[in-house]
Amino acid sequence: MKLWQKDKASLKEVEKFTVGKDQEMDLFLAPFDVLGSLAHITMLESIGLLTAEELKVLSAELKNIYASIAAGDFKVEAGVEDVHSQVELELTKRCGEMGKKIHSGRSRNDQVLVDIKLFLRAEIENVIGEVQPLFDLLLQQSEKYKDHLLPGYTHLQLAMPSSFGLWFGAYAESLVDDVITLQSAYRVANKNPLGSAAGYGSSFPLNRTMTTNLLGFESLNYNVVYAQMGRGKTERIMASALANIAATLSKLSMDACLFMNQNFGFIGFPDELTTGSSIMPHKKNPDVFELIRARCNQLQALPNDIALATVNLPSGYHRDMQLLKELLFPAIQNLKDCLRMMQLMLSNIKVQDHILNDDKYKFLFSVEEVNKLVLAGMPFRDAYKKVGMDIEKGIYHPDTNVHHTHEGSIGNLCLSEIRAAMERALTEFRFAEVEAKLSALVSR
Amino acid sequence: MKLWQKDKASLKEVEKFTVGKDQEMDLFLAPFDVLGSLAHITMLESIGLLTAEELKVLSAELKNIYASIAAGDFKVEAGVEDVHSQVELELTKRCGEMGKKIHSGRSRNDQVLVDIKLFLRAEIENVIGEVQPLFDLLLQQSEKYKDHLLPGYTHLQLAMPSSFGLWFGAYAESLVDDVITLQSAYRVANKNPLGSAAGYGSSFPLNRTMTTNLLGFESLNYNVVYAQMGRGKTERIMASALANIAATLSKLSMDACLFMNQNFGFIGFPDELTTGSSIMPHKKNPDVFELIRARCNQLQALPNDIALATVNLPSGYHRDMQLLKELLFPAIQNLKDCLRMMQLMLSNIKVQDHILNDDKYKFLFSVEEVNKLVLAGMPFRDAYKKVGMDIEKGIYHPDTNVHHTHEGSIGNLCLSEIRAAMERALTEFRFAEVEAKLSALVSR
Amino acid sequence: MKLWQKDKASLKEVEKFTVGKDQEMDLFLAPFDVLGSLAHITMLESIGLLTAEELKVLSAELKNIYASIAAGDFKVEAGVEDVHSQVELELTKRCGEMGKKIHSGRSRNDQVLVDIKLFLRAEIENVIGEVQPLFDLLLQQSEKYKDHLLPGYTHLQLAMPSSFGLWFGAYAESLVDDVITLQSAYRVANKNPLGSAAGYGSSFPLNRTMTTNLLGFESLNYNVVYAQMGRGKTERIMASALANIAATLSKLSMDACLFMNQNFGFIGFPDELTTGSSIMPHKKNPDVFELIRARCNQLQALPNDIALATVNLPSGYHRDMQLLKELLFPAIQNLKDCLRMMQLMLSNIKVQDHILNDDKYKFLFSVEEVNKLVLAGMPFRDAYKKVGMDIEKGIYHPDTNVHHTHEGSIGNLCLSEIRAAMERALTEFRFAEVEAKLSALVSR
Amino acid sequence: MKLWQKDKASLKEVEKFTVGKDQEMDLFLAPFDVLGSLAHITMLESIGLLTAEELKVLSAELKNIYASIAAGDFKVEAGVEDVHSQVELELTKRCGEMGKKIHSGRSRNDQVLVDIKLFLRAEIENVIGEVQPLFDLLLQQSEKYKDHLLPGYTHLQLAMPSSFGLWFGAYAESLVDDVITLQSAYRVANKNPLGSAAGYGSSFPLNRTMTTNLLGFESLNYNVVYAQMGRGKTERIMASALANIAATLSKLSMDACLFMNQNFGFIGFPDELTTGSSIMPHKKNPDVFELIRARCNQLQALPNDIALATVNLPSGYHRDMQLLKELLFPAIQNLKDCLRMMQLMLSNIKVQDHILNDDKYKFLFSVEEVNKLVLAGMPFRDAYKKVGMDIEKGIYHPDTNVHHTHEGSIGNLCLSEIRAAMERALTEFRFAEVEAKLSALVSR
Repeated sequence: MKLWQKDKASLKEVEKFTVGKDQEMDLFLAPFDVLGSLAHITMLESIGLLTAEELKVLSAELKNIYASIAAGDFKVEAGVEDVHSQVELELTKRCGEMGKKIHSGRSRNDQVLVDIKLFLRAEIENVIGEVQPLFDLLLQQSEKYKDHLLPGYTHLQLAMPSSFGLWFGAYAESLVDDVITLQSAYRVANKNPLGSAAGYGSSFPLNRTMTTNLLGFESLNYNVVYAQMGRGKTERIMASALANIAATLSKLSMDACLFMNQNFGFIGFPDELTTGSSIMPHKKNPDVFELIRARCNQLQALPNDIALATVNLPSGYHRDMQLLKELLFPAIQNLKDCLRMMQLMLSNIKVQDHILNDDKYKFLFSVEEVNKLVLAGMPFRDAYKKVGMDIEKGIYHPDTNVHHTHEGSIGNLCLSEIRAAMERALTEFRFAEVEAKLSALVSR
Repeated sequence: MKLWQKDKASLKEVEKFTVGKDQEMDLFLAPFDVLGSLAHITMLESIGLLTAEELKVLSAELKNIYASIAAGDFKVEAGVEDVHSQVELELTKRCGEMGKKIHSGRSRNDQVLVDIKLFLRAEIENVIGEVQPLFDLLLQQSEKYKDHLLPGYTHLQLAMPSSFGLWFGAYAESLVDDVITLQSAYRVANKNPLGSAAGYGSSFPLNRTMTTNLLGFESLNYNVVYAQMGRGKTERIMASALANIAATLSKLSMDACLFMNQNFGFIGFPDELTTGSSIMPHKKNPDVFELIRARCNQLQALPNDIALATVNLPSGYHRDMQLLKELLFPAIQNLKDCLRMMQLMLSNIKVQDHILNDDKYKFLFSVEEVNKLVLAGMPFRDAYKKVGMDIEKGIYHPDTNVHHTHEGSIGNLCLSEIRAAMERALTEFRFAEVEAKLSALVSR
Repeated sequence: MKLWQKDKASLKEVEKFTVGKDQEMDLFLAPFDVLGSLAHITMLESIGLLTAEELKVLSAELKNIYASIAAGDFKVEAGVEDVHSQVELELTKRCGEMGKKIHSGRSRNDQVLVDIKLFLRAEIENVIGEVQPLFDLLLQQSEKYKDHLLPGYTHLQLAMPSSFGLWFGAYAESLVDDVITLQSAYRVANKNPLGSAAGYGSSFPLNRTMTTNLLGFESLNYNVVYAQMGRGKTERIMASALANIAATLSKLSMDACLFMNQNFGFIGFPDELTTGSSIMPHKKNPDVFELIRARCNQLQALPNDIALATVNLPSGYHRDMQLLKELLFPAIQNLKDCLRMMQLMLSNIKVQDHILNDDKYKFLFSVEEVNKLVLAGMPFRDAYKKVGMDIEKGIYHPDTNVHHTHEGSIGNLCLSEIRAAMERALTEFRFAEVEAKLSALVSR
Repeated sequence: MKLWQKDKASLKEVEKFTVGKDQEMDLFLAPFDVLGSLAHITMLESIGLLTAEELKVLSAELKNIYASIAAGDFKVEAGVEDVHSQVELELTKRCGEMGKKIHSGRSRNDQVLVDIKLFLRAEIENVIGEVQPLFDLLLQQSEKYKDHLLPGYTHLQLAMPSSFGLWFGAYAESLVDDVITLQSAYRVANKNPLGSAAGYGSSFPLNRTMTTNLLGFESLNYNVVYAQMGRGKTERIMASALANIAATLSKLSMDACLFMNQNFGFIGFPDELTTGSSIMPHKKNPDVFELIRARCNQLQALPNDIALATVNLPSGYHRDMQLLKELLFPAIQNLKDCLRMMQLMLSNIKVQDHILNDDKYKFLFSVEEVNKLVLAGMPFRDAYKKVGMDIEKGIYHPDTNVHHTHEGSIGNLCLSEIRAAMERALTEFRFAEVEAKLSALVSR
């Protein structure tokens, strides 16, 4: 069966189409690909598929490649399909035919699988590395502005007094729950798929427990069919966890845009952090918040994007999976950028003083008035009616002092309890252990 | 400001529109609403807002209502807006004005919040209750059919030998990771929002730690603004966890539909579990699997449905949240049905014998042939070429015995390791503790 | 192959699971199912598969069933699977064995297909029936409030003067584009799939052009495989068109919620159309708008819900399609409710007078000041700088009269052009022709 | 209000964050930005805001820039924010201060709006340019393979005979409906937003009808607030139309992957268009189809991605809109690539002969047998039972000739009717008129 003549000319286009953005995306995986190979050949030697000498030579060169990646000197060359081929190519350049032996007992499928799991595990650590300073900042600002009252809205209608202490603290506590879901993504990612080959295992007597230990994984994806099934699934679970953090940032940005609006006027930012208009000389626009919001809303779409790419595919590898890299990998970088930008903005926030002095906010205190009558013995429903009548008659003159004392209220922010909850969540990650294992692998 | 005459007639329609499906959805919440009220009034008495005598009377009647809910005798009457109003109505029927006091120090907002958290916590237990027997069944079938070989496909092309032992076991292991993500949803749900009132706390000296203990929550949503922010967020996290289980069931169903197809012919089911056609007398259709697949794919859309309903809403309660009930609550029931149906189908599955005897499957063994040459000393790339040439020349006659021995392979399914992993995941739930607390609350 | 004893007990549950909500959903289809059958048997008689006498008897009884459906006396009985079976059952009750002949030359697949197409075609007419009065109202309010100025925001920051004339008119014009997309859904729905049988045609010499004419379809889904492929696709296209209208309503609701917020205070509504709080006696909440917004955002999720249910299914019918009914059919009712509620709200809106008199809005006029300098000969960039400096120096005292004259601006709303555009869009529907055909079919 | 010292260092990062991918995305818009400016200044001169001489100079230079864009010599320089600034910069380099006058009477907002509408209008023409040859090819292949029978499946179970004539023809007809929805996107895009300035119009006496004519738009977005509201909405409507084409390609790819699977074995492709495996020497994988499927499923996620980015934003511009460019623009290129790849694959397809000769396919003819009995006078339900019994008893020996004659069936593919339907759909686009207008603008 032959190609039509005119279609031969199209073969370059086919290659471009199938490679897609892989050369760019695979750069994210490069160091992890080398780590996976180091573990794999160490294991191959232990089961007699490599000699001690071969292992020594190959390890040394892989470590050189690892160093060149770390130094930024590595790229997937034009004409080379992906990072795995590039690494093998460099290796055979350096060690000759022996370089090809690193592929024994595995497939590109389990190579990608282990690369992605190692990469996601590392990126979760990086994301946590940006979440922590933002969390700390939110707690600091909560403490600093605990006496700055703010209208609290429900249904976007004036409701009850709130405070900037509450507002900052709420987003700090939101990050705690986000970290909890990221923790489950970490546990799912932190299992070794290497040795599953093309998704059906190998006739070689591989020692998968050994590579699991070498790579610092907590455990294995035991079943080789499941190991392959983890492709797409791990990405979706990761995306859902990222989407939770993104939702927190997006909501905070929406609040900030509203609070900067002149009808509210609750907060402001230095000119350098706002943007002007090409036609309106008075504008100070909250572009950074709008772009955090938009990017974070794209991140909220990500789990669905991945679901649509994978749904109704039967078990076993499909090339469709390749595109998940370009959905997920840049999204992670995006989220880290948003976390950093949010820190920058909130470090420079200016909170207005005495917001509630404006007469239009006096209705915020109606519940307090009701409660006072209740404490004085009037049934709640009656007190509610009386205050409602006073408002209608124009004889409502509330006491505007706020005395909330219970856990988590304006007067009792529970910041140390929130900090303790975050610390509990963070101790469940095993970043240091993992780093020790990987250092050992690279330096051994 | 007056309504136009013709619009007054529309007010019934407004009420119908705003109530929506709440009367139906709130039935899911009814027992939890009573539990929340029991904890709340116990606390109110402890801070002097109810007398001991009032607490005694109100508690007794709430327990009666709880019993009538358990007996199925409770409903939200026409004209009553929601479950909270219905419970209060029943209480005032029985205790007079005193009944209204249960609303002191809270709002409908934190009442719904605590109801939903209690409900989701209970439903996670119910879902786990259906996941466990399916998991057990999958492991049993994996053991039973461990010697039944099956073609393994990649790119939907014949790849390597697989087995029904691997196939069933893969889905068992998939459920382990699903339970891990459900565990994080449990942790997020298992925190007490009660006391946050309308989302800005209360001037009453509420003891939120006390209600946390009474309701068996692990901890509090401390910050009252965050407690309210948990609405929508908790639902989305729950939905994402359910979607993971759903994705597992959906993929299993897709495989089953394919394997039942006559071109594959790998599995079959009793006539009672398949469906005929209105025009084709030979049909045995896999309708149950198709409907599991479709319902589970709806479940995979759920996190996005919730995201679209909540995205870009500023902090504070919005009535939009009401609709999340009708998105999430029936979906949970749906998933439990799918889990049960899957058990029924897989208990009755018939697996074909000797599938790989068909000559078209001989290419499955090409990697084995390559590996044999490698073990005999030929470099991998050369062995790969030789087998490829043999296939083209028609002199490829593979040995069709499979000897895979490594962890998770056909010959070494690691079922006990997979079971242990599930058990570890399950011990992190605290179902028994919670039940003990709630029993104490109801029976005290 | 026999069911295990314990599983026999589960068969009722299987039936419940597979029938799902079909009995409820199929009520939407009932009249259309009868219409399809009337056309089908008329055609069967023309090709000799029914006698003239049989046609007469069957037609008469089908018309009786049609009348009973119209009178609300029809339902799918317990134990009857779907509307098609119910109609056939009623027919055989009345005509005996002859009743079964209506199924010759078709399958339940093309029966559902034609029912859904007829139903969607009718529902598009119903939706248009609600869009039109809302469009008219928006134009009326635009004209009525054309002199009521309003701050225009960009980035949620004060930008330039706007008006209620512009605001109402914008949403009217939005509906024009929405109707254009609904028109393409209409064209896709208005093609006859009847005669495609199970998706592969029939060996009977069916006259599909004849049923196309009888049912008032514009054309056929010619290819029978494509006719079946239309299932899922037609629903998604319909859902996308509905989502456009929903997006218009959702944005209008968001604006309304914001404008009712006390920091804006631009609009108000009679008490009967707002909602109070259970704890805050001063609240007037915009619940109707919030619920329109939430329901319309659910509608915006619908195309994706349908995509997830259908993606990666190979061609040919799958039972998964059944669930699309419960996704789409109630959603259409939902949108019609929202359109009606929006009319009710906007008929009763109260627009504040003299909003821009407040000093905080004076920056809205900065562009006008710039433009005045430009008209007086200063280059734009210089004029922009001068006004910016004046603002900073506090010597900015703008003229607050607005003289916009170009097409579509505050002073020249182009309402009649917008009305003409809507009328052009509406003339492309052929509602009257279709109704005439269907009347003929029922009364013939 | 001053930035903290340490944050000043971050300002570069802020710029990088806010510019994002705009420099890359705006290259898509560059020629259209110049066209918009040409129309705008022609109009400015007509209302006296430019002299004839200024118009002459500016036009000449804009045409030079247009030529350099066409020649590929244009880029957005580092440090220049977007394409609009770059064009203005080039202009002032060439014409001095006069260059700045092109911004009079507009804002970057309406500049982007008009650029995007012009770009989308042009891209719809490009997409149609790829749809047409694929449509033609599908019809050719349908005609060529009209006698190649194929099993037709429902529920993925053998159902009735189908043919490659039907299969190819179905996808051709699917493209007709896709083009109908694309037509509505065209109509929405083909309206002029220029003159809406920042979304609230201008105090200059702009002649928007004049620019509408110059740019070949069918009509205006009249209302200036609506013109701005079209941002996000136009993109979503475009995305929905693209998603329809994508769904057609995705389903065709899924079928192709299944049909290439060895258990089916219905079609094949030359080696150059399939891909091997790194470990399995026998593999011929359908990577091109898998990647078409995956990319097209990403496209199906696009309308939802856009919805999530825009939902619940109040009216008026928000910076969030910027990100829609990077969602939509590359997606359009993606779809065109997929359309081209699909043509390449289908031109080289090899269809197996005599597929239905295999005995396992004999059940496909059961309906034919039933119908024969019906034509011979037996009631349908009885004939159905008899054939079912024959199958069970093993005495079912069907006639395997297929005589389907009705419209759209195996024997009567209606290809010319399908072609006519496509031609009707295509005549509604006004590509030639638009091109004539734009040529006039550039060459005038």
